[in-house]
Amino acid sequence: MMVVKVGGAEGNDIDNVLIDLAPRRDYVLVHGGSNEVDRLAEALGRPTRYITSPSGVVSRYTDKETMEVFTMALAGKMNTAIVARLQSLGAPAIGLSGVDGGLIRGHRKEAVRCVDNGRVLLVKDDHSGTVDEVNAGLVQLLFDAGYVPVICPPGVTPRGELINTDADRVAALVAAGLKAETLVLFTNVPGLLREPSDPSTLIPEVPRERLSYFMNFAYGRMKKKLIAAQEALDGGVKRVVIASSQPADPVERALEGMGTVIA
Amino acid sequence: MMVVKVGGAEGNDIDNVLIDLAPRRDYVLVHGGSNEVDRLAEALGRPTRYITSPSGVVSRYTDKETMEVFTMALAGKMNTAIVARLQSLGAPAIGLSGVDGGLIRGHRKEAVRCVDNGRVLLVKDDHSGTVDEVNAGLVQLLFDAGYVPVICPPGVTPRGELINTDADRVAALVAAGLKAETLVLFTNVPGLLREPSDPSTLIPEVPRERLSYFMNFAYGRMKKKLIAAQEALDGGVKRVVIASSQPADPVERALEGMGTVIA
Repeated sequence: MMVVKVGGAEGNDIDNVLIDLAPRRDYVLVHGGSNEVDRLAEALGRPTRYITSPSGVVSRYTDKETMEVFTMALAGKMNTAIVARLQSLGAPAIGLSGVDGGLIRGHRKEAVRCVDNGRVLLVKDDHSGTVDEVNAGLVQLLFDAGYVPVICPPGVTPRGELINTDADRVAALVAAGLKAETLVLFTNVPGLLREPSDPSTLIPEVPRERLSYFMNFAYGRMKKKLIAAQEALDGGVKRVVIASSQPADPVERALEGMGTVIA
Repeated sequence: MMVVKVGGAEGNDIDNVLIDLAPRRDYVLVHGGSNEVDRLAEALGRPTRYITSPSGVVSRYTDKETMEVFTMALAGKMNTAIVARLQSLGAPAIGLSGVDGGLIRGHRKEAVRCVDNGRVLLVKDDHSGTVDEVNAGLVQLLFDAGYVPVICPPGVTPRGELINTDADRVAALVAAGLKAETLVLFTNVPGLLREPSDPSTLIPEVPRERLSYFMNFAYGRMKKKLIAAQEALDGGVKRVVIASSQPADPVERALEGMGTVIA
């Protein structure tokens, strides 16, 4: 079994991945959808704001209202669209947000440190959360019954508060929980690049023990993918592949190791 | 087992019902959420339009864009909020839209007849649908595993098109599919009233064979509830109760027959 994660940022070809996945029954799909969230936030007159952590990780700033927008765009529109599309391709897909059945349980960060113009600030109304537990049993139940689970954030706290969790890290924790062989993280570039702007500088292999060194080559969202890869490997997943969603047969290509393989 | 349906129109006290349901494990919940859809449509600058069928049934006019708004508000915001709230009350709730696992499969109406200023018109871009099949096996699978399923429209066609289906009728079909004993339809009035504006004119009992006669007392959304009641009884459900969501212990009251009982 494998876990496949598709993103929603510019340049990701989700449909290309879905067409390749549709005949298979050996996977669980996880998706994000930052573009869709931004679009809805914009349409509602609440443009997205981002915060940057002192270590350079960029996150969406999610106050209560933004959390609602996030849920509507991701669990409402995008998850439903992916599930309906997979069904039209013959796959018995079922959508789950991290709230459903306590699939992604976590706690809210009391305060988030962020950097603004060189100063470190504390943000207190952010709904970012840390995942404590994944209900892999629920995913396994549906998988064993022949369904294709399609999972997205948000997660939930025991008090029923929604938390914004990164979809790459959710994919890693789901993969670990299911003891998946492989985690494929699709993106809009060929993999981890030495030079982010130059696709020819692809790093084809990263030995697990050197992952922290290779973090130096990662910027922005790629840094989250490497953190997710680390979490997946720590959780018992054998292999993580970061690959492009754009070429034909993207799943097959990724499984053949075309991309950055971390093992 | 019973199926409980809560609505989202003005005056429905959903939280009151959730608090009463939380300790129970003998139900499946279905919800609508017309208010939430209207609110989001308004915020996005696309106020809701309604159409009235020649027989007097009022429905939301749902073109493609409205279908997206509907999905975001219902399957995104409202379903997630109900699931999170039930979890905070200790219930292992799991949200499902009718798209998930082909839970509510149907076909789109080719054209909908509606009355406008006394003239009958044909509307062709409406995403209203007729339900052909309910995947009761999926609901039963989750119920048997200890989860509390929380179901909402939309439904889906085999081609992956979303369809707007009435939540009362979905509840009826789910109840029939699960061979539920009782279907409780909560509303913002005490039940079927002889005079819609006078709560003291409650009709406490409707014998099943006289349901079509009693349709004469039903206006607007109450008509849909009676159609749903008919469908549930035809599908083998023993008893349908139409009851108010507002008093304390609304579930217990409804099960004791306080409301309109159709059997």
